[in-house]
Amino acid sequence: MDDAIRPGETSIALPAAYDASIYFIGRIRTPWHERGQCPRQGDRDAGPECRIEIDPRWQAALAGIARYKELQILYWMNFARRDLVLQMPRSRAEPSGTFALRSPARPNPIASSLVALLGVETNVLIVRGLDCLDNTPLVDVKPNYAAPFGSVDSADHT
Amino acid sequence: MDDAIRPGETSIALPAAYDASIYFIGRIRTPWHERGQCPRQGDRDAGPECRIEIDPRWQAALAGIARYKELQILYWMNFARRDLVLQMPRSRAEPSGTFALRSPARPNPIASSLVALLGVETNVLIVRGLDCLDNTPLVDVKPNYAAPFGSVDSADHT
Repeated sequence: MDDAIRPGETSIALPAAYDASIYFIGRIRTPWHERGQCPRQGDRDAGPECRIEIDPRWQAALAGIARYKELQILYWMNFARRDLVLQMPRSRAEPSGTFALRSPARPNPIASSLVALLGVETNVLIVRGLDCLDNTPLVDVKPNYAAPFGSVDSADHT
Repeated sequence: MDDAIRPGETSIALPAAYDASIYFIGRIRTPWHERGQCPRQGDRDAGPECRIEIDPRWQAALAGIARYKELQILYWMNFARRDLVLQMPRSRAEPSGTFALRSPARPNPIASSLVALLGVETNVLIVRGLDCLDNTPLVDVKPNYAAPFGSVDSADHT
């Protein structure tokens, strides 16, 4: 589902082969079902609660996560085109290089968001601060060591 | 080059297939040639200067990047095993879940570091704050919108 190129945008030929591969380790559940509904940036204080559903295969990897108040979430923006080097964001007057933007359109469409961890329920993280579509594939969950520690409600993990 | 499992660590069976693939978009050049030499965390103030060499295919995507003082770098930790759910870091007394650690060993070995941007030379970013091995594959470069703006020396980009 590639978007059309806008005036001022430039695409290049993608490499003939990929270099590495990833697993989707779960799904992100949010209230947004179309891209136009998504906020421009997540809000860790006032955004809606979202659910990060970890595939049961990886559930044991959540042990100890409730001690962190803030997590870094990596996810896959699977509807973005990967061949743009210059982009024309609606909010700017001139084209910008892809690496000078956080646009979903990039060679590897991996997004990174910092979220507030509100709770842990078996294989589900309850968080605030996401801005992605419902059902977005999850790539990674990491603690943000730079944020203050805390302890959230946890039914299954300590 | 998988490491051995230590006492207290648990591995699982990986999925039979991958879900998505990535391109390596360049290489990271650092002073560290063995894992034991790498610092535990990068230092944006006092760490050594490192070079991020972008593949010429993507060079145009750097346009405008010199206006950011801080970048987020995603890279591929290609020597880590991907099947651990519980890990025993040397610094901890008990095993921790993989998602409660920033260890390289994780289902998708993508690291994320914030670096200070010191300069831009054609297709090379001069940065401070990395902690990875020399020649580490580069996955993405994003501006850190949360950091103050600035303008670094740039021979080729504005």
